[in-house]
Amino acid sequence: MYIKITKELLAEIRRSIADGKDTALLQLTNDLHPADLAEIINELRPEEAVYLYRTLNEENAADVMLELDEDVRNQLLSQLTSREIAEDLIENIDSDDAADVISELPEEKQEEVIALLEDIHTASDIIDLMNYEEGTAGALMAKELIYVNIHWTVVHAIKEMRKQSEDIDNVYTIYVVDDDDVLLGTLSMKTLIFASSSLRSSIAELYRSKQVQTVLTSTPVEEVANLMKKYDLVVIPVVNENNQLMGRITIDDVVDVIQEEADKDYALASGISEDVESGDSIWTLTRARLPWLLIGMGGGLSSAYVIGVYDITENPQMAIFMPLIAATGGNVGVQSAALVVKALANQSELDETVWRKLVKELAVGSFNALVCSIIIFFTTQLFNFDLSLSITASLALFSVIVFASISGTYIPLTLNRFGIDPALATGPFITTTNDIVGLIIYFGVGHLLLHWLQGLPINLFH
Amino acid sequence: MYIKITKELLAEIRRSIADGKDTALLQLTNDLHPADLAEIINELRPEEAVYLYRTLNEENAADVMLELDEDVRNQLLSQLTSREIAEDLIENIDSDDAADVISELPEEKQEEVIALLEDIHTASDIIDLMNYEEGTAGALMAKELIYVNIHWTVVHAIKEMRKQSEDIDNVYTIYVVDDDDVLLGTLSMKTLIFASSSLRSSIAELYRSKQVQTVLTSTPVEEVANLMKKYDLVVIPVVNENNQLMGRITIDDVVDVIQEEADKDYALASGISEDVESGDSIWTLTRARLPWLLIGMGGGLSSAYVIGVYDITENPQMAIFMPLIAATGGNVGVQSAALVVKALANQSELDETVWRKLVKELAVGSFNALVCSIIIFFTTQLFNFDLSLSITASLALFSVIVFASISGTYIPLTLNRFGIDPALATGPFITTTNDIVGLIIYFGVGHLLLHWLQGLPINLFH
Repeated sequence: MYIKITKELLAEIRRSIADGKDTALLQLTNDLHPADLAEIINELRPEEAVYLYRTLNEENAADVMLELDEDVRNQLLSQLTSREIAEDLIENIDSDDAADVISELPEEKQEEVIALLEDIHTASDIIDLMNYEEGTAGALMAKELIYVNIHWTVVHAIKEMRKQSEDIDNVYTIYVVDDDDVLLGTLSMKTLIFASSSLRSSIAELYRSKQVQTVLTSTPVEEVANLMKKYDLVVIPVVNENNQLMGRITIDDVVDVIQEEADKDYALASGISEDVESGDSIWTLTRARLPWLLIGMGGGLSSAYVIGVYDITENPQMAIFMPLIAATGGNVGVQSAALVVKALANQSELDETVWRKLVKELAVGSFNALVCSIIIFFTTQLFNFDLSLSITASLALFSVIVFASISGTYIPLTLNRFGIDPALATGPFITTTNDIVGLIIYFGVGHLLLHWLQGLPINLFH
Repeated sequence: MYIKITKELLAEIRRSIADGKDTALLQLTNDLHPADLAEIINELRPEEAVYLYRTLNEENAADVMLELDEDVRNQLLSQLTSREIAEDLIENIDSDDAADVISELPEEKQEEVIALLEDIHTASDIIDLMNYEEGTAGALMAKELIYVNIHWTVVHAIKEMRKQSEDIDNVYTIYVVDDDDVLLGTLSMKTLIFASSSLRSSIAELYRSKQVQTVLTSTPVEEVANLMKKYDLVVIPVVNENNQLMGRITIDDVVDVIQEEADKDYALASGISEDVESGDSIWTLTRARLPWLLIGMGGGLSSAYVIGVYDITENPQMAIFMPLIAATGGNVGVQSAALVVKALANQSELDETVWRKLVKELAVGSFNALVCSIIIFFTTQLFNFDLSLSITASLALFSVIVFASISGTYIPLTLNRFGIDPALATGPFITTTNDIVGLIIYFGVGHLLLHWLQGLPINLFH
């Protein structure tokens, strides 16, 4: 087991840095996992971070760098020389991580670092990866993989694999290719290890030829994540249009994609910018939250305008059910939109058509609307409100719920069709829109009904 | 590549089932991945599902069963005999999945199925797993793993592993134990395959002894997921209090846990029950959404009561900014609560204390409150509202934002301390509470100020 990090350990490390006690520092950090070391460095001041980073051994340092928060990493990278980055860092990490790190550098430093790489093959791999569009399988994949030629014997394959696997932590699957690097199939370590008694048999006799699930370099990462989740894959090979093996994507990278997707949807639904955390500075937090509040306030001012137009002073009792109408409209809209966002994330060929979705949502919405408006009618009557107001509130509530169901379904579907993230439709946007439309419906119904209903008894029960 | 499923394929499969054309059916389903077959079966009527399921070969059928939606699986299981479940299904799946499937059966069928299992070892493994509490590592782990004794030679280890690995798809890591099954370290397939030239060397010479990250059978699955995410693990060994190896948890199970956690938080934030999908029946959807709407309506009625108490007919112009106050309070509360929920999900030893969190949130809240209330003051003045109303609205807005920041932070922290899911504090609950408190603050401020402010000029700008 690794040592657990604590606040006391952090304090001790800071003291050792301040006093320049390198031996004590090494002793403190020696048994820490790189991910924990990264958490410590995230908490340090920039100059402390550089000091600690430089005491780490090469391989540990490289792993730590990859685990740092992005802003801390950029800060630290800016303190390191191009030579340190090229020789100590890039040479010790996978090509996909290397491409990510180098992309974060300023442009002239990017060129310096790549020029300083000793292995030309590594350099060209990294340049390759940097050329794929962000968010595609090509940009996520690593070039490091274990592949064997179909014509090799087991003994030759093992010899080649030993070379290839030097830079690879987890092998997972061995890919079988032909002379043109076209992917033919896979071979498991298990098969190979148990075949190693017959070292002269050829790969062609051992490998599984059919049904390798692949993705193209241009496949969006969300689709890669969905495939790997659906088919329970730990690694997926990435090929080009000619089915030539280009790289592989491993489950740990996909776990990050899944987590990011989920965080993004959650952030949009709750009205915060996606990359903010409660540990960030007060200024960052304010900047991440204020825009959403301003959107909401814009909605609030529009509502104020609507209320002004319908002149609340003429029928002030209408004010009583404004919060009810607005809140319910907002809640229904968010529910509908969230269901659509979830459905779009797990899209399937067998899904209902948009048209059927809307019809169904209309049914669900109408049913909920009916139940809610009946409850409100009788509750308000019991609480002694005017019959005309009760009828107005329940009719408006019915219309608002039905409207919110439909708009909550239609808006994210439309955003998605235009390539905009449908999750934008959840959270502040939809509640704000529904607030305003809800009020318009409420006052519209009120305007139409309140005069017609003058002749009714004051209350059903009193 | 597997064949892609389409609506046309689904229709063809249904026709073949209806006509009883088994050969045609086999041809259609032969090249489908079990996960895709499961998606097809999810769409079929129960009797069609059983028919199709019985045409599948044993191993495919078992994989399909595991991928089905829970309600479809239970429906299908209820149609199968105990013998079919034991011999065709349970014998073909991992112990952890077997334990899950059997737990879903009615009690007498559970006993029948276990009694029918041929391998007593499998049966006792399953019973073992069923005894661990839901949501712990013990309940999630599989018993199938590859382990070698530290005293074995490589050649003996390979022989033993060949037996052990019969039921295992992905080996990942080989665990090294002593004579009492105490976990000593790990060995990678890579090391073993490249060591196989020296078949007589012992495991003790090859394995890595230190720093194996383990979890206890009692560790909560969320903690397991966090550990595996943090340390980029694809598999983690599960041990008991004596450090004896009990099982292993693989990343694909953890991906499901991560997705479920994210879905649950998202569902709570958007006010829908967690296990509902847009593909579900109208009745299920209504049932999942109505309770949250009723909570919101309860809040709306409470707001109506507050408005009634402060007698809106006396100062009807107060109604104009009610939506603004309520919406902004709700938005701020949801933002604060969502940040806390995210922070709690990624808890670290180095986190700020609760007290510091509240102080910080107070700072962020006050700053946002200041900006928002200044904007509202001048906008409303520009739009020609009474000065007294503008002052009331901006002062109330300031107080509501500060209050919502604090309550949005404090409520989820408190829920968490009492073992309740903090995500419950996001979504309808917090917006409803903040609606009501917001109105009380607004009318409170209005009550205090409106009379004092009579002497002021009507408007700053006009």
